[in-house]
Amino acid sequence: MKAFMDENFLLTTETAQHLYHNHAKKMPIIDYHCHLVPQMVAEDHQFRSITELWLGGDHYKWRAMRSNGVPERYCTGTDTSDWEKFEKWAETVPYTFRNPLYHWTHLELKTAFGINKILNPTTAREIFDECNDKLRQPGYTARGLMRHYGVEVVCTTDDPVDDLRWHRMTRESGFEVRMLPTWRPDKAMAVENPTTFRAYIERLSQVSGVTISTFADVIDALRIRHAFFAEHGCRLSDHGIEEFYAEDYTDAEINAIFNKVYGGTPLTPTEIRTFKSAMLVEFGVMDAETGWTQQFHYGAIRDNNSKMFRLLGPDTGFDSIGEFNTAKAMSRFFNRLNDRDRLAKTIIYNLNPSANEVVATMLGNFQDGSVPGKMQMGSGWWFLDQKDGMEKQLNALSLLGLLSRFVGMLTDSRSFLSYPRHEYFRRTLCNILGRDIENGEIPASELTRVEQMVEDISYYNAKNFFHF
Amino acid sequence: MKAFMDENFLLTTETAQHLYHNHAKKMPIIDYHCHLVPQMVAEDHQFRSITELWLGGDHYKWRAMRSNGVPERYCTGTDTSDWEKFEKWAETVPYTFRNPLYHWTHLELKTAFGINKILNPTTAREIFDECNDKLRQPGYTARGLMRHYGVEVVCTTDDPVDDLRWHRMTRESGFEVRMLPTWRPDKAMAVENPTTFRAYIERLSQVSGVTISTFADVIDALRIRHAFFAEHGCRLSDHGIEEFYAEDYTDAEINAIFNKVYGGTPLTPTEIRTFKSAMLVEFGVMDAETGWTQQFHYGAIRDNNSKMFRLLGPDTGFDSIGEFNTAKAMSRFFNRLNDRDRLAKTIIYNLNPSANEVVATMLGNFQDGSVPGKMQMGSGWWFLDQKDGMEKQLNALSLLGLLSRFVGMLTDSRSFLSYPRHEYFRRTLCNILGRDIENGEIPASELTRVEQMVEDISYYNAKNFFHF
Amino acid sequence: MKAFMDENFLLTTETAQHLYHNHAKKMPIIDYHCHLVPQMVAEDHQFRSITELWLGGDHYKWRAMRSNGVPERYCTGTDTSDWEKFEKWAETVPYTFRNPLYHWTHLELKTAFGINKILNPTTAREIFDECNDKLRQPGYTARGLMRHYGVEVVCTTDDPVDDLRWHRMTRESGFEVRMLPTWRPDKAMAVENPTTFRAYIERLSQVSGVTISTFADVIDALRIRHAFFAEHGCRLSDHGIEEFYAEDYTDAEINAIFNKVYGGTPLTPTEIRTFKSAMLVEFGVMDAETGWTQQFHYGAIRDNNSKMFRLLGPDTGFDSIGEFNTAKAMSRFFNRLNDRDRLAKTIIYNLNPSANEVVATMLGNFQDGSVPGKMQMGSGWWFLDQKDGMEKQLNALSLLGLLSRFVGMLTDSRSFLSYPRHEYFRRTLCNILGRDIENGEIPASELTRVEQMVEDISYYNAKNFFHF
Repeated sequence: MKAFMDENFLLTTETAQHLYHNHAKKMPIIDYHCHLVPQMVAEDHQFRSITELWLGGDHYKWRAMRSNGVPERYCTGTDTSDWEKFEKWAETVPYTFRNPLYHWTHLELKTAFGINKILNPTTAREIFDECNDKLRQPGYTARGLMRHYGVEVVCTTDDPVDDLRWHRMTRESGFEVRMLPTWRPDKAMAVENPTTFRAYIERLSQVSGVTISTFADVIDALRIRHAFFAEHGCRLSDHGIEEFYAEDYTDAEINAIFNKVYGGTPLTPTEIRTFKSAMLVEFGVMDAETGWTQQFHYGAIRDNNSKMFRLLGPDTGFDSIGEFNTAKAMSRFFNRLNDRDRLAKTIIYNLNPSANEVVATMLGNFQDGSVPGKMQMGSGWWFLDQKDGMEKQLNALSLLGLLSRFVGMLTDSRSFLSYPRHEYFRRTLCNILGRDIENGEIPASELTRVEQMVEDISYYNAKNFFHF
Repeated sequence: MKAFMDENFLLTTETAQHLYHNHAKKMPIIDYHCHLVPQMVAEDHQFRSITELWLGGDHYKWRAMRSNGVPERYCTGTDTSDWEKFEKWAETVPYTFRNPLYHWTHLELKTAFGINKILNPTTAREIFDECNDKLRQPGYTARGLMRHYGVEVVCTTDDPVDDLRWHRMTRESGFEVRMLPTWRPDKAMAVENPTTFRAYIERLSQVSGVTISTFADVIDALRIRHAFFAEHGCRLSDHGIEEFYAEDYTDAEINAIFNKVYGGTPLTPTEIRTFKSAMLVEFGVMDAETGWTQQFHYGAIRDNNSKMFRLLGPDTGFDSIGEFNTAKAMSRFFNRLNDRDRLAKTIIYNLNPSANEVVATMLGNFQDGSVPGKMQMGSGWWFLDQKDGMEKQLNALSLLGLLSRFVGMLTDSRSFLSYPRHEYFRRTLCNILGRDIENGEIPASELTRVEQMVEDISYYNAKNFFHF
Repeated sequence: MKAFMDENFLLTTETAQHLYHNHAKKMPIIDYHCHLVPQMVAEDHQFRSITELWLGGDHYKWRAMRSNGVPERYCTGTDTSDWEKFEKWAETVPYTFRNPLYHWTHLELKTAFGINKILNPTTAREIFDECNDKLRQPGYTARGLMRHYGVEVVCTTDDPVDDLRWHRMTRESGFEVRMLPTWRPDKAMAVENPTTFRAYIERLSQVSGVTISTFADVIDALRIRHAFFAEHGCRLSDHGIEEFYAEDYTDAEINAIFNKVYGGTPLTPTEIRTFKSAMLVEFGVMDAETGWTQQFHYGAIRDNNSKMFRLLGPDTGFDSIGEFNTAKAMSRFFNRLNDRDRLAKTIIYNLNPSANEVVATMLGNFQDGSVPGKMQMGSGWWFLDQKDGMEKQLNALSLLGLLSRFVGMLTDSRSFLSYPRHEYFRRTLCNILGRDIENGEIPASELTRVEQMVEDISYYNAKNFFHF
């Protein structure tokens, strides 16, 4: 019987243990996609309590609590204390066996706070107090935690109209961890609502200094902001899309659609898809010309619970995995850019694991020998960011592409405690490779190459791919 | 080498064996969804032969026999004897290695008849005779088998127009196993055929005493029957649907559609979907108001073989797994009920395993803290009711929801010999949990909690959830 | 630690080793679907170099090289030498751990050339030279390799207008391996392009001697060719389709569509689907009447990269796995033939593994007891032709059908070095069965039946099913 979460957690063979302890563990963290709040890094935020850190915005935990029968006031309520919320979470934890939350929770307690106790109602109070004590110490601020986990670079997620002041302030403060912005222009494509879209375009006009009256003006304004982001060290873009969009269109049509929505008239579903098709191409061209990497997170269906959306707004735990037949549109979209010699380095993140093979084989259509692993399949995303999801992604990529060239893990998180997910990923990766060696499926004589592969996927591939 | 189907069948670790033998095995069976024929329980049916029990209506076995080259007369024919049919089945069995039928067959022989022989052409005659001998004994009647397997509650599947006489008779007979009806109003939504629909509505009118001339009358009549079912102890509804339906509609539109089809005019595909959308909402509201649990079995495509359908009718082994993108409609449907505060406790059963993650994450959108595990993912259904299907369902639910709150197994069967599937499920569950503990993925120190979890999923969760 | 690719490669239990070494290994190879070039067999082609054999047309390797950052000139270029290309491939190999190419490469080196070295930049030159030396020896010609691997029958893939001269010449040469043609009439359905379609129909008219002016003439001409193929020993047809097509149509409609496209007018998407629906039925009827087996390879999306298509044409590594909801059309199509008593023996190959369960359950709808395993699920195809893909196919078929009746492996390859894939498949099959026996899931007492099952799936099932 293996002890719970000991040093060989998830490492079932000696070779896996060797790979992890001697090669994966030591590598710094490049967290090339996350949702940290830049202001918290700039101001080196100190946390009020473990409740703020763990339950302040973590919709994974809220979902688990709601599933466990915990009333909403202990999740997102304002009339409950930090302790009351924590207590309800501690009551829920023993019901999360086999859910990644059980592992994340204890891995965070262990690696951040040195706590090896199991969280349950009996231990809740002592763990609450011990964490809160530590959070008052200087090493437990936002920056302290980043240092503690060996983070080298983080890429936040930012709107094109953002002034990036917190990034600038952080850089100028001399903080040794690089915090770079990521270009996420979802709102510039959000033509579903003419009112908010117009407001957004007006703000874009303001920050870019471009008077906007046509679609071409929008693109001019966005290009100015794109250059501004590049000046601030941005290397990646990111797009949150339901499906891929690759409708046919002409410039005149796009301009007409823009005028219509900008004038306040709601668009038809086809017009919306067509507009997004054009915007995605424009963004892709900008990225290709700047040498950035474009990321696509596709396949979520969001805000499924209208009642809770009205109460709490988006990103509060009411999103789920969608079902789409989007392979052909995905192909047409990349082909369109490729045909114009404007296909940037690309990472595709899918949310439905039944699309793993579609994505893994789509990559090969556009690998062009220019950069190793130019087209990338993103690591298990959101709901799939757990051992099974990671293994399925690693297997699909291995079997249908080149695992060796994978740029590896990212947290996609807004929490300063999520870095142990890199450890979790690296253990999973080493376990797979170690097992293959011990099974005679990878030659033991090539161990040096496998060791390098582990270091590459943990660190060097990302560093080289993104030019950090 | 492990012996075949010994006491530690499917239990690969000591912890798994402990969990099964000391915690799962002893729990009574709550079979909250099945297709037993109530009359057979009421009359305590005695079986003519093992052929009646095994081959009288089991389309799984017929499919296997047809696949093995056995002519139809040995499956459903009337010109072949019980022995001839059994012999053909016995010839087929050795060709079913790795198919669940191989395990069901031997588990049933072992647990019902105490026969540990392997069924094949050599043993066929002696097994046939031994089973038939036993079936003449009092312990082998319908009720005898239910007692033998420790069944506490069964929920049959019944039409709203059913008079539930056999349920009443069974209850009044003092039979210690509770047999409750389940509300399955598929025919009230089957507007594809105006003639059979009209006949159904007329029968509904008759049994409810409501004169039906509008859609509102239909709902009134159904509500009367719903109350009648509730009086007879009904706690669950069930719907067999291809996809989820969530079209927009107005009352006037639904009434017009009803009038059209009731008047004998075939509906368009859109009208059919719209009508079903409305009916599902009406049924959902009734269930919410009564505190029932609504079940949805979706994703089958039925009666694919017209030639055999004309010969044998439905449910004779010509159905299969469909492909649908129904996540958005599923979300809209539940959201619609939730928005009206009329979302009942719900169990979703999917038939295509590639939708496991969609369903497992859909739950979280509507968990509201009112009841632990209010939204449930149903156990591996129909074709998926086997070790691999169960494991995939358990894994998806574990990773994306709370396995601890799962209401567990059901047979969905019309056979009085299907109860060993609960044993099979429990072994599979214990094996997964035991392995996780021995791998250090669940702390061994929390064994008591895992033991409770096994008992909960085997029995207590269902008992509490359905208020049995 | 198991040695890499030793005699027990992929065989993790003693029972698996026994099954493979004593039952699978000795069986001859029936490669009932491949893309060998008949002329190369007829002329007993001698290979210029290992580069010709390995990199002359292998788009799997090209994809891997492109993914690894290798410029196109080393894949398909004409200005690079055999050595330069081989060197780049050898540099890529160490980056293919966990990809099937790593195993194919070393299995081919070992079984064809007796080379047990690991291919990497250090060993590249010696391996290149050793292979090339051997390729100059008589045992390494096209026929030599077929003999070496114990091939008994191969079925190539041929167009209805082909004169089959190379098949005839090979047969008349007395070559002991039977090379039979397969009827692959994709071009007769390729109505997307009126010009190439017309040219094809004109050629068909020429070779059949039928003057074509109506759709009925097309069918007459094809029937003549179908009979011609039958005379040459053809036993299988094959269709490469994106989805299944089962639109409703009348003869008049099909004739009108034919006249339109034959007259040079492009068809609408619906017309294209309708035409294909009709053609697939016509082909199915011909196959049923001749006792052939019809094969369907569905689900690929092809030629995704227009730029490379213009440079290199089709089948150069720019195809991938598609997403389709085609279960209902598949059902309607087979039902249509079944209803006319014209459903031939059938093999369905799917490319997206998330359709495995759909296909495996579709079979059962049309198994009619006439032939064991009349409806077959094809072995892991194209991207899925690797251990994980094979295992998933074997599992889906096992759980939802009868694995025992499976006609087994085929290479689907244009390479004379692909026969070790049969070994790979057999090892995978034996490993699964051996593990089940040792786990107590198949009774060890039934070992003889399992041994027979291994021989059947490796050889006898195909021999009997296709009447070779």
